[in-house]
Amino acid sequence: MKALALTGGVGGAKLALGLAQILSQTELTFLANTGDDFDHLGMHIAPDLDTLVYTLAGISNRSAGWGREDETWSFESTLEQLGGETWFKLGDRDLAVHVHRTYLMRQGASLTEVTLLIAQKFGVAHPILPMSDDPVRTVVNTREGLLSFQRYFVEKQCKPTVLSLRYQGADTAELNPELSLDDFSCVIICPSNPYLSIDPMLAIGGLRDFLASTSIPVVAVTPLVKGAALKGPTAKMMRELGLESNAVTVAEHYKEVVSGFVLDQQDEGLLESVRSLGLEATALQTVMSTLDDRIALARQVLDFCDSI
Amino acid sequence: MKALALTGGVGGAKLALGLAQILSQTELTFLANTGDDFDHLGMHIAPDLDTLVYTLAGISNRSAGWGREDETWSFESTLEQLGGETWFKLGDRDLAVHVHRTYLMRQGASLTEVTLLIAQKFGVAHPILPMSDDPVRTVVNTREGLLSFQRYFVEKQCKPTVLSLRYQGADTAELNPELSLDDFSCVIICPSNPYLSIDPMLAIGGLRDFLASTSIPVVAVTPLVKGAALKGPTAKMMRELGLESNAVTVAEHYKEVVSGFVLDQQDEGLLESVRSLGLEATALQTVMSTLDDRIALARQVLDFCDSI
Repeated sequence: MKALALTGGVGGAKLALGLAQILSQTELTFLANTGDDFDHLGMHIAPDLDTLVYTLAGISNRSAGWGREDETWSFESTLEQLGGETWFKLGDRDLAVHVHRTYLMRQGASLTEVTLLIAQKFGVAHPILPMSDDPVRTVVNTREGLLSFQRYFVEKQCKPTVLSLRYQGADTAELNPELSLDDFSCVIICPSNPYLSIDPMLAIGGLRDFLASTSIPVVAVTPLVKGAALKGPTAKMMRELGLESNAVTVAEHYKEVVSGFVLDQQDEGLLESVRSLGLEATALQTVMSTLDDRIALARQVLDFCDSI
Repeated sequence: MKALALTGGVGGAKLALGLAQILSQTELTFLANTGDDFDHLGMHIAPDLDTLVYTLAGISNRSAGWGREDETWSFESTLEQLGGETWFKLGDRDLAVHVHRTYLMRQGASLTEVTLLIAQKFGVAHPILPMSDDPVRTVVNTREGLLSFQRYFVEKQCKPTVLSLRYQGADTAELNPELSLDDFSCVIICPSNPYLSIDPMLAIGGLRDFLASTSIPVVAVTPLVKGAALKGPTAKMMRELGLESNAVTVAEHYKEVVSGFVLDQQDEGLLESVRSLGLEATALQTVMSTLDDRIALARQVLDFCDSI
């Protein structure tokens, strides 16, 4: 067994944590979205990489859904006093990651090298690879104009109506150089926003083609339950893009690149619709409240892969 | 009355605070050493500017002699966990100043503009001008080789034997563009290290010549009492440079640029030696333990200026 898991933000990281409890570091590699990365106050911020590292290290702030536990905010309050940009909240501990990453990258380290180093220092054994070492930036085309992802997501709180999405730089970016796609025996697309977290990866040369043509099982887990996202703007964005916000739409979105699709058990009634797309389908408890939920879903998803 | 005060680190800032209690923002301007500035983790750190701002704002850490009061250290402890460079301690609140300054400077603001903005945000009304907007870097030539100032001062704790000092960039740097030397009616050289804090300023074109030729009173306050510095490496460095570590040596060092020199009252016996250099001299209580001490010395130094 050698699994590759594609993941974005908080939802994806939940399943990632479950998978990491079952598979060893040689059996499981993570490929994480960097389309949300941005330059802020001169620092390279990589929200999805950090969410994954913090989650796997057991130091994420689970109630906030971003940042670290045991965080302090002295930097932020002083920056506010100075009249600095505070729309993107930076905790003191979190800041050390951004400063250290940016410093090492300015000295010539790649994002991959820095991410592996930071993960290792936090005690994370599983390889976490950014989708690319080249900058790919998700740009949201909205009724209010073009917005960089974090401006849309954090500053504007996803309020502007989305017209379309662009993954700037994806056409020239190379897939992570450490990633040997031929090594894997299955691929799992974690329950992340398809348009914001997974599509940026699929837009990078090679990955979509590999997934579309491989004979190994590729399984996606729905980020929607009963037509709604547990967190984040997936459902709202789908409606704005003129799509029906349900799991079948997501399955259809992925149908060229996956062989199997996991619905939530509450959407069992949609199994036949998914199967009619030519996909294997199963319905599982995808809502993960506890660590046990995460492990249970991970195990069932791996079993589903095995069955394909 | 329009006074210009030249100042470096903690000792200078003490008298600066006293002066600021007596003279209004239109009557008093500070010119601060930036020879200690350095680039650290991608940030522009300006220790003497920050010491002065924090001191005048009443938020300096008086027991440590550097940094801020009410500081937290989450950034530092996380950076240590990450294996980052922690020889130069950065508190969480202090860090906001460095990040904000660096960010604004990368956007094109000058060090002067940023310093005035930061000081204003912390409620400091008196103008604080960096000696230059151009980089001047004090390099310490030691038995262990050339060391940048902070490596010598902080990392090596002033232990290497000093052979000589260089002020890299001083020959091409321009004096602060906001500084109109002709506006002032007196100049006070605060009790800072002559070689590390004041000489970098005097090495910049124009200032030494102005002070040497002006008819306004220029008064230096000794940083040495009974041959010893209250803080820092002044006395040790003087001995290593082959100089006698006492106030007369400092007076001689300054004699071309000052018209008067303030000894400590414990060195009253040296008054005649200083006068024999052709300088006006007085002996005052230069050891400043309380705010009242700072104000009292400031008032007496201003009176001494008036008397010249």
